[in-house]
Amino acid sequence: MTININNIIALGTGVLGSQIAYQTAYSGLEVTAYDISEEIVKTNRKRFEELATRYEVEVEGARGGRAQAALARINYSWNLADAVRDADLVIESAPERLDVKRALYTKLGPLAPERTIFATNSSTLLPSALADATGRPDRFLALHFANEIWIHNIAEIMGHPGTDPAVYDAVVEFAQRIAMKPIKIRKEQPGYVVNSLLVPFLTAAQSLVANGIADPETIDQTWRIATGAPKGPLQMLDVVGLNTAYNIAAAGDEQARANARYLKEHYIDQGKLGQESGEGFYKYDTAPQVRARTQSK
Amino acid sequence: MTININNIIALGTGVLGSQIAYQTAYSGLEVTAYDISEEIVKTNRKRFEELATRYEVEVEGARGGRAQAALARINYSWNLADAVRDADLVIESAPERLDVKRALYTKLGPLAPERTIFATNSSTLLPSALADATGRPDRFLALHFANEIWIHNIAEIMGHPGTDPAVYDAVVEFAQRIAMKPIKIRKEQPGYVVNSLLVPFLTAAQSLVANGIADPETIDQTWRIATGAPKGPLQMLDVVGLNTAYNIAAAGDEQARANARYLKEHYIDQGKLGQESGEGFYKYDTAPQVRARTQSK
Repeated sequence: MTININNIIALGTGVLGSQIAYQTAYSGLEVTAYDISEEIVKTNRKRFEELATRYEVEVEGARGGRAQAALARINYSWNLADAVRDADLVIESAPERLDVKRALYTKLGPLAPERTIFATNSSTLLPSALADATGRPDRFLALHFANEIWIHNIAEIMGHPGTDPAVYDAVVEFAQRIAMKPIKIRKEQPGYVVNSLLVPFLTAAQSLVANGIADPETIDQTWRIATGAPKGPLQMLDVVGLNTAYNIAAAGDEQARANARYLKEHYIDQGKLGQESGEGFYKYDTAPQVRARTQSK
Repeated sequence: MTININNIIALGTGVLGSQIAYQTAYSGLEVTAYDISEEIVKTNRKRFEELATRYEVEVEGARGGRAQAALARINYSWNLADAVRDADLVIESAPERLDVKRALYTKLGPLAPERTIFATNSSTLLPSALADATGRPDRFLALHFANEIWIHNIAEIMGHPGTDPAVYDAVVEFAQRIAMKPIKIRKEQPGYVVNSLLVPFLTAAQSLVANGIADPETIDQTWRIATGAPKGPLQMLDVVGLNTAYNIAAAGDEQARANARYLKEHYIDQGKLGQESGEGFYKYDTAPQVRARTQSK
């Protein structure tokens, strides 16, 4: 049986939720952007207009009306029953808390048609921790996007043991339709692929700084020269944000916890939270950043 | 007191020893390439001619005679006393065994002038494990190069607690003279900066493969898209070589040892040793590789 995915609902209009909805619309599909109140939806509508502007600057072919036309394919809703009444796919980007997401799925399950596929964009929760709350574990999996979806165009797709393989394949195909490179993850893995690689790498870099082995510039330069990468690990941490880095480190082993204390004392307590705050391991222009069109895609 | 470094001896004519000597000569300095027997020296002389050819292809400005002229600044020796009689700096790239290196330094110490600085290119031994054998711990430190020195032009410089800061600074300056970016490491650190970052990163990638989470192509592609790096971790491991990866993994924790068994069973036992053998995680042309001139520098 073919699974058609045409009616797409993005639950959550935060940083990633808005990017997912906009990228879906930009790819020519109709999408409903839902959030829990009229006020939040109205406030976050500006994210979509900002995204259109960034696409015009950063995405080849987005000017000349294409980025603006995408906005017309986005419907906004703060009524969950209305939003999902005829949904083929619901992509959930709710706050990263188990209780919040479980409550949402418990409410969502009876409102959506039986055929609707639910996909969580959770970064840290495994699908198996949510599956039973959906009422349709066979039609539930994780579809995980990276920030700046139009540049880092990967979608990590990870089922739980009860996910129907046909549903998995349909979501892989959907990811391709919205111009994502689907990353097929064969088994549940905390952190998917990206964070399974990033966390130990960024932890090692933090340890070098916290233990006084070398300064951030030296470490980053070493990595760039040794591997040809455009950014070193401390530059990456500035993008991730030092609060996020702190939270991950504070939950780690003894060295990681020492790194967390170092981050707090030397950076976070001084308001140095990374690129968004204007300073982290490095200083940044506070002007809004617009990338050059030559940015790698 | 100014420390002059003009008379340079490279001990060892293996892969890295020959690159260090050639890069020194290419930078306009006289250098003596020493190895333990006439036979080894004569066999390894071809490495230097091969390096001149690779520089002509891969290094901007090396053609038109410059790469060949460097060969004339290399003297060859298999007599240690003669080689180091008037040395300012001895760079040691002996086999990576504590007993071999300690025996070498014990022999070398009385043969070299008091002023001679000794630098070890050891990847895995800390300078403090060798310092007393040199008879001149204050003039001893680590100067660690990366393979393909003309592309990955970093020199990690790491003293032990007894290294004279003036000696450290002189070696930093020497590294710059031979066109290396000096990486100043402030405290002894196993793995320096590069391997402190690479080992946990490459271990995480091996774990994903060994645990069946995703295939090598998927993992590498994910990393390249997510970070903009030119190579993913399994591509890097193919360059490092799977025997080296195996040896590091086999000395690690439980997951690392499982990775080592996986590498052995699925790759090493089938002769897949990485890029040099023509196959590792990927297949390679067996023709000698010559990089394009446009290679990032």
